[in-house]
Amino acid sequence: MSIEKQISDLRAAGFRMPGEFEPHEACWMIWPERPDVWRLGGRPAQEAFAAVAEAIAHSETVYVGVSDAQYEHAREMLAPHIRVVEISSNDSWVRDTGPTYVINDRGLRAGIDWGFNAWGGLNGGLYFPWDKDQRVAQKICGISGDPVFRAPLILEGGSIHVDGEGTLMTTEECLLNPNRNPDLSREEIESLLAQYLNISKVIWIGRGTFNDETDGHIDNLACFVRPGEVALHWCDDPDDPQYAIAREAYEVLSNTCDAKGRSLTIHKLPHPGPLYISPAEAGGIHLNRDSHPREAGERLAGSYVNFYIGNQVVVFPLLDPARDEEARACLQRIFPEREVIGVNAREILLGGGNIHCITQQQPAR
Amino acid sequence: MSIEKQISDLRAAGFRMPGEFEPHEACWMIWPERPDVWRLGGRPAQEAFAAVAEAIAHSETVYVGVSDAQYEHAREMLAPHIRVVEISSNDSWVRDTGPTYVINDRGLRAGIDWGFNAWGGLNGGLYFPWDKDQRVAQKICGISGDPVFRAPLILEGGSIHVDGEGTLMTTEECLLNPNRNPDLSREEIESLLAQYLNISKVIWIGRGTFNDETDGHIDNLACFVRPGEVALHWCDDPDDPQYAIAREAYEVLSNTCDAKGRSLTIHKLPHPGPLYISPAEAGGIHLNRDSHPREAGERLAGSYVNFYIGNQVVVFPLLDPARDEEARACLQRIFPEREVIGVNAREILLGGGNIHCITQQQPAR
Repeated sequence: MSIEKQISDLRAAGFRMPGEFEPHEACWMIWPERPDVWRLGGRPAQEAFAAVAEAIAHSETVYVGVSDAQYEHAREMLAPHIRVVEISSNDSWVRDTGPTYVINDRGLRAGIDWGFNAWGGLNGGLYFPWDKDQRVAQKICGISGDPVFRAPLILEGGSIHVDGEGTLMTTEECLLNPNRNPDLSREEIESLLAQYLNISKVIWIGRGTFNDETDGHIDNLACFVRPGEVALHWCDDPDDPQYAIAREAYEVLSNTCDAKGRSLTIHKLPHPGPLYISPAEAGGIHLNRDSHPREAGERLAGSYVNFYIGNQVVVFPLLDPARDEEARACLQRIFPEREVIGVNAREILLGGGNIHCITQQQPAR
Repeated sequence: MSIEKQISDLRAAGFRMPGEFEPHEACWMIWPERPDVWRLGGRPAQEAFAAVAEAIAHSETVYVGVSDAQYEHAREMLAPHIRVVEISSNDSWVRDTGPTYVINDRGLRAGIDWGFNAWGGLNGGLYFPWDKDQRVAQKICGISGDPVFRAPLILEGGSIHVDGEGTLMTTEECLLNPNRNPDLSREEIESLLAQYLNISKVIWIGRGTFNDETDGHIDNLACFVRPGEVALHWCDDPDDPQYAIAREAYEVLSNTCDAKGRSLTIHKLPHPGPLYISPAEAGGIHLNRDSHPREAGERLAGSYVNFYIGNQVVVFPLLDPARDEEARACLQRIFPEREVIGVNAREILLGGGNIHCITQQQPAR
């Protein structure tokens, strides 16, 4: 009998989604290729992805999935210790298409394979088709050797953050968006999160970072840095639309408690920019008939919260020379035991996300 | 510095190719898909491959590489404990396209990535192009996590068998064929085999099994079952062209010694058939302009030697009801400590090879 059939109830078998700050066995990424998202045929983004992979590889194994067509090219651009594997995809947001891993204290690990509809399907989604993306989680688990559990809801990994101790943080803008699970109520969604991730408390924040094309993923606004502590994308300029968003989130976070009954300590991270797509950048993107538009002058949803917590590193996006060092100093204070590494991430941001969106941790068993 | 650069001399670092009968960590296979090789769109062959995978999985992890297009189909047809991974290919002969693994006694393992030209390139090869096949070895090593060494000669894994103690067996028909390495002499080939596989004695047999489209791969004629002992595809019918081939091989094997100076014990395996493609079988193959012809009445190169030695099993092809039990009894005598499992392999044979050709062991470190 397959292990999926043996484990009929993940929660009863003690599985939980660990916090990103808990020990990892590996990190997964997917190579950027599509020319209507990544400018100049993807080359500048590929350099940024390679730098992210290299930084994370300081303290854990990094796998990069790539199509057969770009296999040799990726193998050439990535350092030899990065493990390159064939994984076809529609785009490279493995946080959203990869498995959400859960573990239990008997040394077992499993992958949750959520439904995926490219951030909204035919009702506001970012591309069509997304069939290859739908196979990514299963393929990753085929390599990592973990059983796969399909969860009956549309959910991207970037729309949730957990503390590993029963608390999950998300946004109403995304998880209650009618383009995700129109037939599920808030309570039904909470019940599925409880069932698959062992969550007993969901913290609902209203909106995500301004102009985020994912419909406000939490991972571009706030995250747990350890149980009881969150980092928040702050903004001090009352004329910036991010100002009200940050305050609303702060209000929620400072008036709630987590699954263990703790109040939350909130670390404010500075606001980069505001940042906009330049004409030269927009000119390098080769849109087709169906592409999500990316035009010069459009506001980019840059956020320093979109970092990756590795075993001994924190890899964060360099986005704005005027704020990068302040962001680095904040992160170093938050993570005194980890090396904080900045990577030039403008090219990742141009594609619509950042370092957290293009990575997926595989927790240690 | 990459490990490939650190290890400039595999032999000096103590690497050797172990015998197939030594402990395995896993076995690799590639899903059959192409309709001009596998009849009826590949479905009957896929069932045979699934049965082979299942039999081998009795005692070691089995990976099956498959294209993205057939991923879900393969995942559905294969048992849940078989690990399905994406690997594009031109066809499914992983013995010939996969890495030849070498190990040393310091617990290291590496993959040799030979040149591959589809059994003869534009001069008698079996299909064009073979570009995806050329990436298979590297992709497998990307998943198994082993460094890759590219060897400067065209060689298919099925054209060599080793005893793990310095002896390699091959055929002149294949390895000296001008469609493989026209610029290398016999001595230069021996020198490369010595360098990459730690071989000190090459046993050259003239011809392989009759009408073998690989140009006489050794793995369809003879193999080491342990150091000092070989199995040979025998034939008792003087009117059969296999008769002379088997006697020539016997002559060579009984008048040579291995790298350790031992004479060889020879186990004769019976001859199935003769077997021919039926009109119904030929009618199910969808040839295109460039396909290698597969016509009704053509003699098939069936051989019971084309088996796989797993950790606790021997998986051999069922080919001829009149001889299958005799072959099974021979194999059980040769491998008293292993379970001998027969798999209906007619569909694999129709594609031009058999169980050994569609498998590649990954030795334990």
